[in-house]
Amino acid sequence: MTTRILAPGDTIGILGGGQLGRMIALAAAPLGLKTHIYAPDPKSPAFDVATERTVAAYEDEAALALFADSVDVVTYEFENVPAATAQLVAQHRPLYPDARALATTQDRLLEKTFVRDLGIPTPAFAAVDDRASMAAAVGAIGRPAVLKTRRFGYDGKGQVLVREGLGLDAALAMMNGQPAILEAFVHFRAEVSVIAARGRDGTFAAFDVVENRHENHVLRTSEAPADVKPETTASAVAIARKIAEALDYVGVLGVELFLVDGPAGERVVVNEIAPRVHNSGHWTIEGALTSQFEQHVRAIAGWPLGATDTRGRVTMTNLLGAEANDWRALLAEPGAALHLYGKSEPVPGRKMGHVTRVKS
Amino acid sequence: MTTRILAPGDTIGILGGGQLGRMIALAAAPLGLKTHIYAPDPKSPAFDVATERTVAAYEDEAALALFADSVDVVTYEFENVPAATAQLVAQHRPLYPDARALATTQDRLLEKTFVRDLGIPTPAFAAVDDRASMAAAVGAIGRPAVLKTRRFGYDGKGQVLVREGLGLDAALAMMNGQPAILEAFVHFRAEVSVIAARGRDGTFAAFDVVENRHENHVLRTSEAPADVKPETTASAVAIARKIAEALDYVGVLGVELFLVDGPAGERVVVNEIAPRVHNSGHWTIEGALTSQFEQHVRAIAGWPLGATDTRGRVTMTNLLGAEANDWRALLAEPGAALHLYGKSEPVPGRKMGHVTRVKS
Repeated sequence: MTTRILAPGDTIGILGGGQLGRMIALAAAPLGLKTHIYAPDPKSPAFDVATERTVAAYEDEAALALFADSVDVVTYEFENVPAATAQLVAQHRPLYPDARALATTQDRLLEKTFVRDLGIPTPAFAAVDDRASMAAAVGAIGRPAVLKTRRFGYDGKGQVLVREGLGLDAALAMMNGQPAILEAFVHFRAEVSVIAARGRDGTFAAFDVVENRHENHVLRTSEAPADVKPETTASAVAIARKIAEALDYVGVLGVELFLVDGPAGERVVVNEIAPRVHNSGHWTIEGALTSQFEQHVRAIAGWPLGATDTRGRVTMTNLLGAEANDWRALLAEPGAALHLYGKSEPVPGRKMGHVTRVKS
Repeated sequence: MTTRILAPGDTIGILGGGQLGRMIALAAAPLGLKTHIYAPDPKSPAFDVATERTVAAYEDEAALALFADSVDVVTYEFENVPAATAQLVAQHRPLYPDARALATTQDRLLEKTFVRDLGIPTPAFAAVDDRASMAAAVGAIGRPAVLKTRRFGYDGKGQVLVREGLGLDAALAMMNGQPAILEAFVHFRAEVSVIAARGRDGTFAAFDVVENRHENHVLRTSEAPADVKPETTASAVAIARKIAEALDYVGVLGVELFLVDGPAGERVVVNEIAPRVHNSGHWTIEGALTSQFEQHVRAIAGWPLGATDTRGRVTMTNLLGAEANDWRALLAEPGAALHLYGKSEPVPGRKMGHVTRVKS
């Protein structure tokens, strides 16, 4: 299998057809690259802008092989790519980020263990597989704590806050028998994230640290740059770099952190790693010299990373559900950059688009 | 036929599959619009990023009808759309800019007459159909002058400079029997252009005036804003507006002008109108708050026009032929925004891409 540097005219294969795949495809085209989107849903938003499309299940080995053979490099837009899918694809073409990055970040216990073993602060955590380990974990970590499924959680799904008074059995029942992790509840001042990239040659570049606000566990706004001390920014970027280097990572990654006030001042604690472009990096399309999507394309193509300078004060606001119906007003607002994802059904809370405002 | 305002999820039909159609499609997608490209060449660059594709001749009435019926509005990326094609499409769906804009700008004689009749300065010109009219035209206009075919000329094709010593028969022979126009040669200080847009509701917005440098009749660089007096900018914008209003124009248009120094100071003279997005507006992708491509989409969708503020000092440089092979160096240049058009064959002089640099 070749791992040659891509050239214009080559094709990037993307597993997943949501808005992240769509925006990767939109960023690949100006660089002269074609895209081939692989997704099971024929209505996938990314299909609208891709050069080639495959509608097939992630378990369809024949379709996966055909797909991989038709492209020059493969990436993905969601971290729950099945391990078997990743392995099969990687037998045909280079997969970036690789199977190890996927395996590490798909499982909250592996992820937190990996981060802690690098000497990076995480909330206290413990594995929970049954009543006994649950009791031990609560005993060690205390309450409040958060019980999460180890796998397949996103936007607060598969999580329960273990407060005083909540029975261990009741909490455990909400895991539906899946392996879980108990994490100490962090009394954070703010949630921040770092979007960074590592190239095939090991070069590393981070965007400005952003502050994120969530509502109902779903990202509402990201503001760049975050209102944190320069040392905190340096610390967050150093964490992202250490993680990327330890994984021999290629591509864009998002590191979500809690900003915590303590006796020694503010500090950051890692919450989660996303092995992909990230919602809290959408502001870079207008707000940075290179977008996170172009940066990801550059990294996996084996090309030099782009400049990450921020253009001003940037706010990205997600459009959830029926909020996307405000498109007329947003189009009429001078300087507001509207992004709609081409989804037909505005299910409540569904990410339908976003809008970015840059103040220079 | 409905002329309703478009909504996200609707489809824009584009006649023509070159880089302009490609960049219109790339601008439509973030606004939630689908695109359907109609072009005869199966290797058309715009196909790579379009939602739907039709490969058919512009004379294929059945294919044109199917295409038009599948979209919500039709536009085009080149001004030489055959009149019959435009008429047929317009019977099915709204065509913006309309058939009158096409007819007026396809023919240099109609175009110059239209502009002159609006009281806008043009070079002196006269129709040339045969030896007698050629002799009369040269007698009236003098030398040097430029003899051009009335139709189908671009990038200097179908033109000859009529200097002292060039026989009238020799010049006429280069027109290959096509109707022609003789235009006075303008001793210009610079070539400038205005890219402007007019919405369906008559609103008008212009980008900054740009200065263009050509090599071998092909655009080499555009710089925004042009180094001209504020009155000159106002005059150029007023000209574009007068033209757009007289045509009841909808969409983006480009007006190329000569900047001339005279006894009363600098002034502008109209050279040519392009009823479409224009190469000298590519700088707006990074250099203005709204790109010319998004602006065109907004206009033909019936949406409000976007803000046209310039972000700094902007230079756009075309990548012609083998120059596109410099992509590695351009990717490594901080802040240089590379655009490649997905064309496979770097024929000498062919527009393969461009690069934009913004200094804030």
